[in-house]
Amino acid sequence: MATLSKRRKPLAKPSHIRPDGSLMMVDVGPKATTERFAHARALVRMSAESEVALRKATLAKGDAFAAAQIAGIMAAKQTAQLIPLTHPLALSKVSVEFTWVAAGLLQIDATAQTSAQTGVEMEAMTAVAIAALTMYDMTKALERGIAIESLRLIEKRGGKSGRWRAS
Amino acid sequence: MATLSKRRKPLAKPSHIRPDGSLMMVDVGPKATTERFAHARALVRMSAESEVALRKATLAKGDAFAAAQIAGIMAAKQTAQLIPLTHPLALSKVSVEFTWVAAGLLQIDATAQTSAQTGVEMEAMTAVAIAALTMYDMTKALERGIAIESLRLIEKRGGKSGRWRAS
Amino acid sequence: MATLSKRRKPLAKPSHIRPDGSLMMVDVGPKATTERFAHARALVRMSAESEVALRKATLAKGDAFAAAQIAGIMAAKQTAQLIPLTHPLALSKVSVEFTWVAAGLLQIDATAQTSAQTGVEMEAMTAVAIAALTMYDMTKALERGIAIESLRLIEKRGGKSGRWRAS
Amino acid sequence: MATLSKRRKPLAKPSHIRPDGSLMMVDVGPKATTERFAHARALVRMSAESEVALRKATLAKGDAFAAAQIAGIMAAKQTAQLIPLTHPLALSKVSVEFTWVAAGLLQIDATAQTSAQTGVEMEAMTAVAIAALTMYDMTKALERGIAIESLRLIEKRGGKSGRWRAS
Amino acid sequence: MATLSKRRKPLAKPSHIRPDGSLMMVDVGPKATTERFAHARALVRMSAESEVALRKATLAKGDAFAAAQIAGIMAAKQTAQLIPLTHPLALSKVSVEFTWVAAGLLQIDATAQTSAQTGVEMEAMTAVAIAALTMYDMTKALERGIAIESLRLIEKRGGKSGRWRAS
Amino acid sequence: MATLSKRRKPLAKPSHIRPDGSLMMVDVGPKATTERFAHARALVRMSAESEVALRKATLAKGDAFAAAQIAGIMAAKQTAQLIPLTHPLALSKVSVEFTWVAAGLLQIDATAQTSAQTGVEMEAMTAVAIAALTMYDMTKALERGIAIESLRLIEKRGGKSGRWRAS
Repeated sequence: MATLSKRRKPLAKPSHIRPDGSLMMVDVGPKATTERFAHARALVRMSAESEVALRKATLAKGDAFAAAQIAGIMAAKQTAQLIPLTHPLALSKVSVEFTWVAAGLLQIDATAQTSAQTGVEMEAMTAVAIAALTMYDMTKALERGIAIESLRLIEKRGGKSGRWRAS
Repeated sequence: MATLSKRRKPLAKPSHIRPDGSLMMVDVGPKATTERFAHARALVRMSAESEVALRKATLAKGDAFAAAQIAGIMAAKQTAQLIPLTHPLALSKVSVEFTWVAAGLLQIDATAQTSAQTGVEMEAMTAVAIAALTMYDMTKALERGIAIESLRLIEKRGGKSGRWRAS
Repeated sequence: MATLSKRRKPLAKPSHIRPDGSLMMVDVGPKATTERFAHARALVRMSAESEVALRKATLAKGDAFAAAQIAGIMAAKQTAQLIPLTHPLALSKVSVEFTWVAAGLLQIDATAQTSAQTGVEMEAMTAVAIAALTMYDMTKALERGIAIESLRLIEKRGGKSGRWRAS
Repeated sequence: MATLSKRRKPLAKPSHIRPDGSLMMVDVGPKATTERFAHARALVRMSAESEVALRKATLAKGDAFAAAQIAGIMAAKQTAQLIPLTHPLALSKVSVEFTWVAAGLLQIDATAQTSAQTGVEMEAMTAVAIAALTMYDMTKALERGIAIESLRLIEKRGGKSGRWRAS
Repeated sequence: MATLSKRRKPLAKPSHIRPDGSLMMVDVGPKATTERFAHARALVRMSAESEVALRKATLAKGDAFAAAQIAGIMAAKQTAQLIPLTHPLALSKVSVEFTWVAAGLLQIDATAQTSAQTGVEMEAMTAVAIAALTMYDMTKALERGIAIESLRLIEKRGGKSGRWRAS
Repeated sequence: MATLSKRRKPLAKPSHIRPDGSLMMVDVGPKATTERFAHARALVRMSAESEVALRKATLAKGDAFAAAQIAGIMAAKQTAQLIPLTHPLALSKVSVEFTWVAAGLLQIDATAQTSAQTGVEMEAMTAVAIAALTMYDMTKALERGIAIESLRLIEKRGGKSGRWRAS
């Protein structure tokens, strides 16, 4: 069965890599301009005790979360300078949100959207990665072993391949 | 017993947050200049089939890995522009390395070092995060669900708190 | 009377702030693309003696003003990296001009324009601010107390709210 | 008397400008490394009504102020990329603070410090300017005519010229 | 003869310079959006011995060339931040290629393309310049006197002036 | 003879390249901090007619040259963000100068200096390259075929290898 399906669908190839193994920036000129959306998520795992200390420290004001949110948004706008073969994009919106989903488990959701000839997955992934690193920077004095778990794409829409959702 | 130890060691507090919840950049002026080292690691999980396609595409040349390595090194040098409350640092070395540790499991190790008044954990974490995102950018056409797992600090040396290693 | 006017026009709200006080980047996707223009102005106040020294030093060539002009133009192009919740914009023109309007009083005018889904006020404001800071940098050896006065928007055109001029 | 004092102290000259009017970056190599400190201040003038709306919007969380604070700190770290003839500096601390000093009058104070061969006035001035512009960006929907007044240096310490305070 | 030709074609003027000698950013707003393409080339001259050492060092992997290629592509995306009076552009493609054209003579070709109101010559020139400097950085230990020769535009297409090719 | 000299001096190897062909950033931590200086030069070749037009356009003010000078200085400060494997450096001085050395032949000289553990060749090379590209940007309307010739290092001082001068 696997063999059959492979015969019909040729093996996918990595982006940005030519047959000889050298790199290239994909030409997005011929692609259609469509609405693009991407949603990425990171989970930051800390001890329940660190969560308490962080919540307590930021009780009066939400500044720690504001810092991580802003860092994520600003990084999304710099994606083309950070990820070598991405295209510069004029994003129409970036969002970064925080939710405690279990004791000591902070979920960070980032979305990016625009109307463009190429997708915004890397913008959402970059936003969530830098927001998570900023949270790490502010909590590492509590517990150096805090880990970012499962940074990944949740959904993307737009372009020739249309909608995709993580299973 | 826990109570006793708590009495001696006051509860740790997040960095960069004042008692009123507002943010601040820590003053590193009074800190001693010592040799600083940090090692961070990310695991990128893909299907065994994607690993084969990636290895095959880059067989002739190592360009895909070179791109991710360079992106990580360049990002480490920009850490102070990405993570809001970090201090600018003149890094003396950054390294980024790749190892296949299991079928479809790519380990990325980054180290940062310098002689400074503050640590280089965020530089190593940023290098490994951007290297992992660059690998994602080059493999997402193979499999959009490739996930970064367990981005975390492995070791740090230098400064008042000395050496720390992940358990 | 105040009560009546309040009933008709609901109280304006700050941009970028949600009802719960957290931040957001406004979604400009649904907005119409129109011609956008903004004009901002700063006044730099120095002693008449400093004006003489500055004019004399730059008599042979206009380099000091060229430096401030270029710094302002380059900063306008970086607005999205400096002001956290602004959108990246492909500016079609930026100008920065200098006029001595009174003894020791240097007026700096900056304009920005493009065709976009959002306004260019922040680009003009950023251009004039960085041009003024660059003039300060070049004159502070003459007189450290030189002050930037009244950095503000003079006019903006385009978008749903149309034209606005400072009274 | 004035004539006498002029004879003893030759007329001050602008920094960065050669006798022929062309520009230069001052060579700070021969200067002593000393503790450097600078404090700059901006006043942002809005209507009392706008102050109420801003305070109300940010009551739940201090995010609007956190955004302006972070923007100011990040800009200070980029001063050498914004102001053409400044030297790159590894800042040991930057602070940005907000105080309502009268109805509708928001005072922003920024300080910068480090141990270096050149002063940090431009870093403090840049921090306060970008923090003020960010506040403008968040309040301009309330009142486009909000003005930054009196952006200036309050104090600097360190270097050959020692301490200076605004009168 | 020269006189005649001058009568028909008025003397060309430098871009970005006003009649009074001051600078300006050209307003591209009124220009038509057309397909833009530019191709620039640099020649890097080294001894035949250095070529052998470089080829030998990079035999196993093409990383040195990948580094120069990526540096060139990333620099092209930053052109508006490097060349003062250029306009920000969302490039649809950038390429950087290497060819040994004679013993010790490395040719670097860069192209840039997009659909825009202004040309992409500076993007191609910047890509090739930074790629060449990166090759120099990696070979200077072999031979400090390696020189970049003849960095120039080869071809440009699009815009009112249409196609141009170096003779 | 050649054999003898080779026995004493092992064949030089490119920097930044490991025996397996992969890249690395050199660890400058163990190197001595010494005074570093580098001087690079570019020649920009245009027709004598273009030189006349450029000189005439900039007669009133030296702004075109000021723009190229500032672009070069600002780029030198960004070298670590442009050339992948270079180390961030706090430059104490950068200079960029212009001389007409023959009809239509503009010489651009850039120097960089600081006290550091690594050399400043790439900073001087980057300054001169970006200054030359900026001159090209301002003169390309006169003559698209203007070429940068012979961008190379003229001299460097400091470090273990000491002084080197181009022959």
